[in-house]
Amino acid sequence: MSAAASALSAPASAARIAAANASVLPARVALLGTGTVGGAVLARLNAWHGTRLGERLSLVHVANSRRAAVDRAGLAPERAATALTASDRPSSLDDVAAALSWDGLAGDGARVVVDATASEAVAERHAQWLAQGIHVVTACKIGQGTSLARWRAIRDACARGGSGYGDSATVGAGLPLLRSLRELQAGGDRIHAIAGVLSGSLAWLFNHYDGMRPFSALVRQARDAGYTEPDPRDDLSGEDVRRKLLILARAAGVALDAGEVEVASLVPPELAILSKDGVDAALPALDVPLRERYAAAYKNGEKLRFIARLDCGGDGRHTARVGLESLPGDHPLAGGAGTDNKVAIWSDRYRVQPLVIQGPGAGAEVTAAGLLDDVLRLVG
Amino acid sequence: MSAAASALSAPASAARIAAANASVLPARVALLGTGTVGGAVLARLNAWHGTRLGERLSLVHVANSRRAAVDRAGLAPERAATALTASDRPSSLDDVAAALSWDGLAGDGARVVVDATASEAVAERHAQWLAQGIHVVTACKIGQGTSLARWRAIRDACARGGSGYGDSATVGAGLPLLRSLRELQAGGDRIHAIAGVLSGSLAWLFNHYDGMRPFSALVRQARDAGYTEPDPRDDLSGEDVRRKLLILARAAGVALDAGEVEVASLVPPELAILSKDGVDAALPALDVPLRERYAAAYKNGEKLRFIARLDCGGDGRHTARVGLESLPGDHPLAGGAGTDNKVAIWSDRYRVQPLVIQGPGAGAEVTAAGLLDDVLRLVG
Repeated sequence: MSAAASALSAPASAARIAAANASVLPARVALLGTGTVGGAVLARLNAWHGTRLGERLSLVHVANSRRAAVDRAGLAPERAATALTASDRPSSLDDVAAALSWDGLAGDGARVVVDATASEAVAERHAQWLAQGIHVVTACKIGQGTSLARWRAIRDACARGGSGYGDSATVGAGLPLLRSLRELQAGGDRIHAIAGVLSGSLAWLFNHYDGMRPFSALVRQARDAGYTEPDPRDDLSGEDVRRKLLILARAAGVALDAGEVEVASLVPPELAILSKDGVDAALPALDVPLRERYAAAYKNGEKLRFIARLDCGGDGRHTARVGLESLPGDHPLAGGAGTDNKVAIWSDRYRVQPLVIQGPGAGAEVTAAGLLDDVLRLVG
Repeated sequence: MSAAASALSAPASAARIAAANASVLPARVALLGTGTVGGAVLARLNAWHGTRLGERLSLVHVANSRRAAVDRAGLAPERAATALTASDRPSSLDDVAAALSWDGLAGDGARVVVDATASEAVAERHAQWLAQGIHVVTACKIGQGTSLARWRAIRDACARGGSGYGDSATVGAGLPLLRSLRELQAGGDRIHAIAGVLSGSLAWLFNHYDGMRPFSALVRQARDAGYTEPDPRDDLSGEDVRRKLLILARAAGVALDAGEVEVASLVPPELAILSKDGVDAALPALDVPLRERYAAAYKNGEKLRFIARLDCGGDGRHTARVGLESLPGDHPLAGGAGTDNKVAIWSDRYRVQPLVIQGPGAGAEVTAAGLLDDVLRLVG
């Protein structure tokens, strides 16, 4: 931590001494995934090379789906990509724990897997690593944003292994969303409700849609600019937002099941059934329904926003839904620009006016920064 | 911490064991100030009585400027106010450290002063307590928001005493402003700029001013509703915002001197020179200048907002100013409602679109919650 941060939040002295001893040994880090996000993680580590931050981490294993590069003394981040290309070691998830192990070295430093993949196979290993005391840091929503069983397995594995699960990058790419939910609860507040714009793609579309150009034209523009997935139905269906809402809800203390979230997809059936090749030509199926919704909102002086919403009744009852809403112009979620995510949190202390957090919620650089924030916090 | 929070951020095992031992003993707490904020602190502690949060804290000393009540076994929060009224012990800042001391008890628990006063005399003691290893948690801006010398004395005292200074409530009443600045820097980012609406009073005034009613009429309405100080010049001068900007800047790594902040006061000289009695009748001196500024902004489709701004050039140069600005309607700081504070932070990762945090930035309940957040974080 920076001197400023540590000077202002020093823990009790015995714990501080132990932590200082533990932090002398750099943490051993395995990076899985060398695509856009993994590449950005390497770039950020490279910028830290030779600095105090860099001294805290030792990159001992880098892998993509095909190859792995290993160096028990730590790979220089700027040479990791080359080492990987030159490596003839095949990639295997079975090798990760061994690559991280401290095996006979004096002391007991931290071990961390950074999952920069979107792989179900990797997500399936999270609980196993956690149970072995290996911290896992991820941007992937599969671990905590799908079945309750998998979410519980991860939490139980953390408790058993004394390890931590760094999930800041799973919703909002490192925006302080999950952290704020947890800090409020740690400070004694119950979360009453969460509402937000959790999709940068849909934020961009509805920030720009003015009812004049057809919505399908805007979707094509967004897709070509990389603001949506190559198949825009992946964003328009709201399924990605469902997963994000599940992660937020569970962090807010609500054991929400995926099936409990009502998702009002923007994809009409005639578009949903098509193969990927047929999608572009059929996008105009979006136009008339959205034009009508836009006109109705405009007449009321309101704006269309694709909103994820959780309401947590004090009696344990809760409702969760995702869909297009018409919001008054001065609603906390009506503003915003570009692809920003925006989340409002109501709790005991923020009963009427919520806490609102807004900012870039996607992108390789912020995602990599969020992942490494978690790594640094977990290794101490 | 909640189970959810601890399971997801577990530190290295040796440190965790030490911290667990240290946290078995409840921290000894001295509350100074029993006015609006102090009363809200007692109410929140009362709500925790008998819960796990309540078990972590023991209120051994409560005092206002006249009286003190002490109980080495810990006062029940709901009886603190009565105990104070019934006490014949005069209040003395010299007694605080002794009341907190652990004197001969096995172990070494934490000691905390909660400063819920606005007293310069109490702020003058912060460094002394910190140097003795006593954590200080405060909503008062005097310690860190005035001279650089006093700010440095506090930081040095923290380092010497191994103690922490909880300042979440000094700017934005517990909103995660200072925390976000520190977390970004802890994660490797340099802060590029901060801009924000830091005064709930001025936020309310400019959210409601539409150029139709005279500004002075709105000021009277705000004053009568308690949204401004009894003497509205205290808010309109921008001096309170100067102090808040100093605290934010210093947390962002800029050793800003009070004199470096250019403050464009909204109080014209003919109003500034009056005694308090003459202020109300002279408020209309505000009207014509503000009507003109409003008209100019309106013509450009812009909004008036009282903004605090810090720009941190990478070369070490920085500028800081406070004053009324005309902002485009889609500027991150143009939105907002009520008395919300709103702060935008630009850093390495938030280079173009900033991180924006908004929410209630004043009020006894949120301030008390922010103070107790800090207490819980510091005592572990």
